[in-house]
Amino acid sequence: MAQLYDRVAVIGLGLIAGSLFHAMKRADLAGEVVGYARSAETRKVARDIGLCDRIASSAVEAVKDADLVILCVPVGAMGAVAAEIAPGLKHGALVSDVGSTKGAVIDAVAPHLPEGVDFIPAHPLAGTEQSGPTSGFAELFDNRWCLLTPLEGTDADVLSRYKTLWEQMGSNVDEMDPAHHDLVLAVTSHTPHLIAYTMVGVADDLGRVTDSEVVKYSAAGFRDFTRIAASDPTMWRDVFLSNKDATLEILGRFTEELFALQRAIRTGDGEHLHDYFTRTRAIRRGIIEAGQDTDAPNFGRNAK
Amino acid sequence: MAQLYDRVAVIGLGLIAGSLFHAMKRADLAGEVVGYARSAETRKVARDIGLCDRIASSAVEAVKDADLVILCVPVGAMGAVAAEIAPGLKHGALVSDVGSTKGAVIDAVAPHLPEGVDFIPAHPLAGTEQSGPTSGFAELFDNRWCLLTPLEGTDADVLSRYKTLWEQMGSNVDEMDPAHHDLVLAVTSHTPHLIAYTMVGVADDLGRVTDSEVVKYSAAGFRDFTRIAASDPTMWRDVFLSNKDATLEILGRFTEELFALQRAIRTGDGEHLHDYFTRTRAIRRGIIEAGQDTDAPNFGRNAK
Repeated sequence: MAQLYDRVAVIGLGLIAGSLFHAMKRADLAGEVVGYARSAETRKVARDIGLCDRIASSAVEAVKDADLVILCVPVGAMGAVAAEIAPGLKHGALVSDVGSTKGAVIDAVAPHLPEGVDFIPAHPLAGTEQSGPTSGFAELFDNRWCLLTPLEGTDADVLSRYKTLWEQMGSNVDEMDPAHHDLVLAVTSHTPHLIAYTMVGVADDLGRVTDSEVVKYSAAGFRDFTRIAASDPTMWRDVFLSNKDATLEILGRFTEELFALQRAIRTGDGEHLHDYFTRTRAIRRGIIEAGQDTDAPNFGRNAK
Repeated sequence: MAQLYDRVAVIGLGLIAGSLFHAMKRADLAGEVVGYARSAETRKVARDIGLCDRIASSAVEAVKDADLVILCVPVGAMGAVAAEIAPGLKHGALVSDVGSTKGAVIDAVAPHLPEGVDFIPAHPLAGTEQSGPTSGFAELFDNRWCLLTPLEGTDADVLSRYKTLWEQMGSNVDEMDPAHHDLVLAVTSHTPHLIAYTMVGVADDLGRVTDSEVVKYSAAGFRDFTRIAASDPTMWRDVFLSNKDATLEILGRFTEELFALQRAIRTGDGEHLHDYFTRTRAIRRGIIEAGQDTDAPNFGRNAK
């Protein structure tokens, strides 16, 4: 197919931006892809490894003449970046982002954008626990969902073209209301991350269980928690601060359920525990059937 | 090397027993391996797939003339099984188990064993989220830890031979005090499992986030929780009931830390969050360096 955008700018050069570059090149979806990161060291690494066709030395320079600008910075930096690039945006350009929360990003970005520039917030549900300019790869979005939360009045052709870009990068695309997006993600991603961070922190704190024991005997369970809790700290700080209400709501529910299970343990109510643990198995089956994970026995790290 | 035991009996025919059989055969560590499970259906499946050299039709029959008997049933069933096999145990036999908690298993099993029978409790820190007679495989224990919690006065030669069995099945072996074992495992395995079960249950409960959305958009984080929460319900019910004190202690610590992070989210204390999330990264590095996991980007399910 023909290229969808003549010039694309990605601002922020971490896992997602790197993967965007490789995925766009894989399917020849864009002409020139220009990159920019605030850190000179990151820009240097990007130049050295050939990440992007060109690395600009300022955000305004990066977005010059770009048909599509994708903000790939932590959610807390979106507003400042939008303000910085606004004067340089081409009339008719489309601005998007890849932030993990949508309500806060819309509030931060939309007010800065000039007339004649479209804005379609996006969130690819894809990632690894790694970060930085060397961590991206073309297959990251394959068969993963990308959620778009377009604002009212977005031009149908502009939306359709951007949707096609994600599909051609391998994603399944859905549209969703921003507030609903933030609640769904609080359940499926944000709260689980906070809990994993907490559990790993508890293990680290315990005086009687030495660090080396925790590391050495990290059985399935904890080992997966440490993987989650190795994710980028700045990104996740911003996620929680920018999706405060939904995260706190889900945390409240979580605590309520945890206390009920804790009580069942204390009182020896095996039936309550068994019923609860049986119910949660069904969800796992659903995820495998939906093609979002495999049923290979991963605790054994696919040794079979 | 020469076979270590002429006849081995495994009682209970799930993931661990199946893997024991395959691992013993792989390295030719035992003569005849006899199996027994309470369920006739499980015994039939085992016979059909060639799991064990012979399937006995009662536990007493299975342990007849066995030099080594390994109890592979849920922790809550250990006492009853020990009572059942006691009359059939050969003088000089070694009894062991693979339960996830050790204090409760010792209390349940030891009183039933006759004079002249040794008992060495064991816990292989290995598993997958799958269960049943078809789920075992020879490589399960490779490079995983097996913790032995021998009682005072255990014969050194008996212990040494049993330790060699686990090493020849691929494990690294350590000895530990039973109470300390139960605390370490409460941190690295039991509490993480309870938390994962809870989070998946919360997601299942939420009316506004439909099941299909949770399944469809299961990002990294939740997806790993569902894997953990798909583990065998009976086994895990028994783990929590039999390691009550340590689990409740660690849960208390967990809740305390979670509330502190929740407060940081509510008050917008980004520094607290960032510091916490940075600290937990180091533990992950330790686990990779200890060879207990790889640094392949697993959230991308090793797509690179």
